Amino acid sequence: MPCNESQVFQPIALSPVPLHTQLRERLRERILDGSYAPHAQLPAESELGAIFGVSRITVRQALGDLQKEGLIFKVPGKGTFVAKPKAFQELTQLEGLAEAMSRMGYEIYNQVVSHKTVPASAKVAQKLGLAKDQPVCEIKRVRHLNREPLSLEITYVRAELGERLAGEDLAGRDIFAILENDYGITLGHADLRIEAVLSDAALAHALRVDEGSAILRMERLTHSAGADGTPHSQQVPLDFEYLYFRGDAFQYRLQVARRHP
Amino acid sequence: MPCNESQVFQPIALSPVPLHTQLRERLRERILDGSYAPHAQLPAESELGAIFGVSRITVRQALGDLQKEGLIFKVPGKGTFVAKPKAFQELTQLEGLAEAMSRMGYEIYNQVVSHKTVPASAKVAQKLGLAKDQPVCEIKRVRHLNREPLSLEITYVRAELGERLAGEDLAGRDIFAILENDYGITLGHADLRIEAVLSDAALAHALRVDEGSAILRMERLTHSAGADGTPHSQQVPLDFEYLYFRGDAFQYRLQVARRHP
Repeated sequence: MPCNESQVFQPIALSPVPLHTQLRERLRERILDGSYAPHAQLPAESELGAIFGVSRITVRQALGDLQKEGLIFKVPGKGTFVAKPKAFQELTQLEGLAEAMSRMGYEIYNQVVSHKTVPASAKVAQKLGLAKDQPVCEIKRVRHLNREPLSLEITYVRAELGERLAGEDLAGRDIFAILENDYGITLGHADLRIEAVLSDAALAHALRVDEGSAILRMERLTHSAGADGTPHSQQVPLDFEYLYFRGDAFQYRLQVARRHP
Repeated sequence: MPCNESQVFQPIALSPVPLHTQLRERLRERILDGSYAPHAQLPAESELGAIFGVSRITVRQALGDLQKEGLIFKVPGKGTFVAKPKAFQELTQLEGLAEAMSRMGYEIYNQVVSHKTVPASAKVAQKLGLAKDQPVCEIKRVRHLNREPLSLEITYVRAELGERLAGEDLAGRDIFAILENDYGITLGHADLRIEAVLSDAALAHALRVDEGSAILRMERLTHSAGADGTPHSQQVPLDFEYLYFRGDAFQYRLQVARRHP
């Protein structure tokens, strides 16, 4: 059902702020404060132009900006809709995606794209403490949140561990859960690196987004815990991953404290 | 000086992996393992085609993918170069950018774009515990790392605090440092949200990147600490920020531990 624009919008034609920026900010505010609810349909471009007293070009520029931010999305032949809030994962502790999401009532399903032994790249070898070109197991999975693709996960583990994992339910479970609950490997800490990149053609295909979409990329090197009280610096690298999340569907959250001397 | 390709590349024409993907992976590996050093110039497209025995179109596709990832960059009329490693900030504790970067020998300079009183948007008001449209101070700064734009920082604080900040050296210092060292406000914790977005025209202009580039976006709500031992939940919101980092130049890093019951 279309959103209603009850208040009158007064674009300031003489303002140094361009009209489409004024309109964008106004629409953004209404989306963020909930006046335009998730999944609600926006009025057609011509209608928005009439409501706000601006040209259709101005409306298109404003909507284009909001679409880039991921606040709205277009369905060809149907119209423009308010995006739903992003799923998020807390980074306060090390958790698998299914583990973190199930707590919030989300269901995770994984499409196993490939599971094979490959020669370790220089980077993977360095992370896992192997020599370059030694065989490692590479597992690619597209993780689905409520049946929609959310992330591509590329996991590297030592070949023996990878062969063992081939017999497990990788479509339904986190690898972390299998390692801990089935194999009795206690997980320790993980080193994370978080970046923003653009999706290439392969990623766009896997995640069903346009090429050039925003992707939140994480590198995660997870260590096994060793004996009780083994310091982080002596824990053994176990699992190196590249995680590519759809920028329009996901965010990380965490709390950090100020350290006082 | 151009990189040298000493080893023979053997593209597998009958492989299901497209030639440009094979070439891209090969080039990527050499960049990541340091065979192609930061700032080194890659051979020209025609030369790469000859070295690897592939067409120029294939070379272009491979280079295009690597450029999107931020591993290489093109200088018109000069050629293609290996990007330098990204700057990073640790998220283990709450720190200002200059504070975090100076420890690694980087120099931060801020261009103050604007400093003004504006009516609080619904979101800013909610974050700072104010009513919508109450006046707040908005400070926009482009933060430069070693003289290149790294991030756009949009800070919202209560109007009185903002007026006081107008007299400070916002070009040279972190706001956190001014609050703590000059005003005697002890910082507590911050709530962070991290996402990937695309740069719109305004952001592209501020950060000197192309429109549609990858941007690492953070929302940060910083609280003042209150009396010793005030629990996080009772600390008072002080400073709400949007931080937009160039995806090709920056990453966050942190370490998380597995929590065991």
